[in-house]
Amino acid sequence: MTAEIISIGDELLIGQIVNTNATWMSRQLNLANVQVKHVSVVGDDGEAIRRSLDLALSRVDVVLMTGGLGPTHDDITKKVVAEYFDSAEMLLDEKVLAHVKALFQRRNIRMAPVNEEQALVPKKATVLWNDYGTAPGLLFEREGRCCAIMPGVPAEMQHLMTERVLPFLKSKMPKAVIRHRTIRTAGIGESLLFEKLSPIAELEKFGKIAFLPHFSVVDVRVSVYESDAAAAEQRIRAAEEYILSRIEKNVYGFDDDTIESVIGRLLIAKQATLAVAESCTGGLVAHRLTNVSGSSQYFDRGIITYSNAAKMQILGVPKEILQQHGAVSEACAKAMAEGVRRVSGTTYGIATTGIAGPTGGTEEKPVGLVWIGLATPERVLAQKFLFTKDRLINKERFCQMALNMLFRELKS
Amino acid sequence: MTAEIISIGDELLIGQIVNTNATWMSRQLNLANVQVKHVSVVGDDGEAIRRSLDLALSRVDVVLMTGGLGPTHDDITKKVVAEYFDSAEMLLDEKVLAHVKALFQRRNIRMAPVNEEQALVPKKATVLWNDYGTAPGLLFEREGRCCAIMPGVPAEMQHLMTERVLPFLKSKMPKAVIRHRTIRTAGIGESLLFEKLSPIAELEKFGKIAFLPHFSVVDVRVSVYESDAAAAEQRIRAAEEYILSRIEKNVYGFDDDTIESVIGRLLIAKQATLAVAESCTGGLVAHRLTNVSGSSQYFDRGIITYSNAAKMQILGVPKEILQQHGAVSEACAKAMAEGVRRVSGTTYGIATTGIAGPTGGTEEKPVGLVWIGLATPERVLAQKFLFTKDRLINKERFCQMALNMLFRELKS
Repeated sequence: MTAEIISIGDELLIGQIVNTNATWMSRQLNLANVQVKHVSVVGDDGEAIRRSLDLALSRVDVVLMTGGLGPTHDDITKKVVAEYFDSAEMLLDEKVLAHVKALFQRRNIRMAPVNEEQALVPKKATVLWNDYGTAPGLLFEREGRCCAIMPGVPAEMQHLMTERVLPFLKSKMPKAVIRHRTIRTAGIGESLLFEKLSPIAELEKFGKIAFLPHFSVVDVRVSVYESDAAAAEQRIRAAEEYILSRIEKNVYGFDDDTIESVIGRLLIAKQATLAVAESCTGGLVAHRLTNVSGSSQYFDRGIITYSNAAKMQILGVPKEILQQHGAVSEACAKAMAEGVRRVSGTTYGIATTGIAGPTGGTEEKPVGLVWIGLATPERVLAQKFLFTKDRLINKERFCQMALNMLFRELKS
Repeated sequence: MTAEIISIGDELLIGQIVNTNATWMSRQLNLANVQVKHVSVVGDDGEAIRRSLDLALSRVDVVLMTGGLGPTHDDITKKVVAEYFDSAEMLLDEKVLAHVKALFQRRNIRMAPVNEEQALVPKKATVLWNDYGTAPGLLFEREGRCCAIMPGVPAEMQHLMTERVLPFLKSKMPKAVIRHRTIRTAGIGESLLFEKLSPIAELEKFGKIAFLPHFSVVDVRVSVYESDAAAAEQRIRAAEEYILSRIEKNVYGFDDDTIESVIGRLLIAKQATLAVAESCTGGLVAHRLTNVSGSSQYFDRGIITYSNAAKMQILGVPKEILQQHGAVSEACAKAMAEGVRRVSGTTYGIATTGIAGPTGGTEEKPVGLVWIGLATPERVLAQKFLFTKDRLINKERFCQMALNMLFRELKS
């Protein structure tokens, strides 16, 4: 099965936003064995949308459109696609209308009359029920090909893709079995990982291999296509064993694991608790840890001490350390980790202190420098890293290093 | 002048990387008054590249291609485009070859024989000299239309666009001017905003209008096309005045402003400081505030009190409040905001306490409920909101509400 993604919106063509929707959709479709042949971006222009749809339906089986389903004047996708499928007549869908009204009521805001129009559904389309928003997705079918239209809001599009579109596409596909296994690594770069797993040809005997690097973590994905489930499982397991035998110490999890969810499981297994002291990461470490549902079981508190006063007052960092070594130092990272562990009464304490930039660097302590501190029941340690000049990237990487360090400690 | 971007690479179609190149190019082209009509993504497939190029040249003046210029087997762009322009014959460009050799020498790595091929230039193409890499860009022209091909490496593409392609395009253009203005609003939904700005036809007399919603904030963008800069400026200003006169109290900033950067500017102007107490947002409020470079000037500390013990110990929330009203309550939100302001000695304190979910809700206090507290030198107040069942979306929306509330207080 082949697909084309058509992303609609002037904001994409003037470069105001990055088309992350197309990337997310491509990845999910690829995992579902649907081959994305083209991604096309067009503006909020009826004729351009119609032509793109016409071209796409001439070259692929499935067209997935996002954007232009809102309640305002530049939202024309529904009308254009309905006309293309000779389904200009719209009917008011009472269930959708009740849902739209309920959403507004729940948020306690007045509903504008234009929102009622979101419940108008082209006669020949199937509603893709949208739990998260006021615009339903719509599915059109003709001569064995189909077109789904979805809102451009990422959370709503992801919901509709996962719950509505992908299950529909799977139901139309030949019954091949696809299995994917993502092996998630930290603390090793993509090229070194590649080298450790070379020759890749050996690995590709098991299935399709992809390397997916993010900020300082790399996923290795194996995809296996088989005619029956048992054979697919067996090959996936063999691939996993092959990979683990080469890089096991860098693997923190599989598939949907995140390093913060794995940390959570390890803390629960140890009946241990955690507190975080952050300077340069400014709350990002705590934010990621608390993204995990159930984190209140082990996450006690986070202290973001931007000022030196706060470091001394809450964490008990000695004034001498700040004067002699400065806030970005091994001694301060250790004192912060130890301090937050002590005042919180938790099993572990981690701390970050560094220079995220873009200003504030010196020759001795450049932008991108970070010290990570870790306090355990047995010891206090610290590690230093040096990254880039970009503030937001530095925060992400600093945070990742802190989580890596905590993970290694918990696993050892 | 109209343009189409064609991004080449299988890694884009399987969702392995985000197409940030197309976004960057769109923005630069738009600023240079070149209207991007389409972005197309195709794989490393000669026939698909040829067809996309053919279609693009039928509908725009300029085609900009990136990717597939490297030295390996799947890099076929140069060959395909050269053939399309009847320029299959390649000549060795000695200057390019010397440059390629010098680059390898400087990096102190051995040059593979395939790299010599990068100095082969189609006879009818113009070299776009690449200071940063081994693959030169190439420019093809025919019947008043042109196609530039560039490497997909972002730094090399950006260099070639800035130094070679954009100056070339500017030399070919009539002197029209485009201006955009993005007006950023918070605390009002897209449809209500639309209603307040209706009839849109009146607004569109100034230029093209677009509504761009994110989590609980909406941007309104005006785009104006004029023959001279003064006229464009005047129309943009008139549009801005028209919009502000209708929705001023919901506007927090313009263009690249974020609500956290505007909050920062307001705090600096007031010589005020800020501390944050977070429960359900788990560090996200502090993270966003500290994404702003220079935030250490006003951001003193953030306290993430997940446990009730931490709420009492660090923020001094009275035990009676937690027992009588619970942690998710108006009284607790106020006590947290007041507490963090008092212990930090800052001008303002904000606090979040709610149920992010997906578990932990009750009938009385459902998942999605949040109380935001705000303490100022004059008063302490709290506001309640109710959102969805999704943990990560709730964290984002709770955070946005806290920032909105702080912004309104600072602006008033």
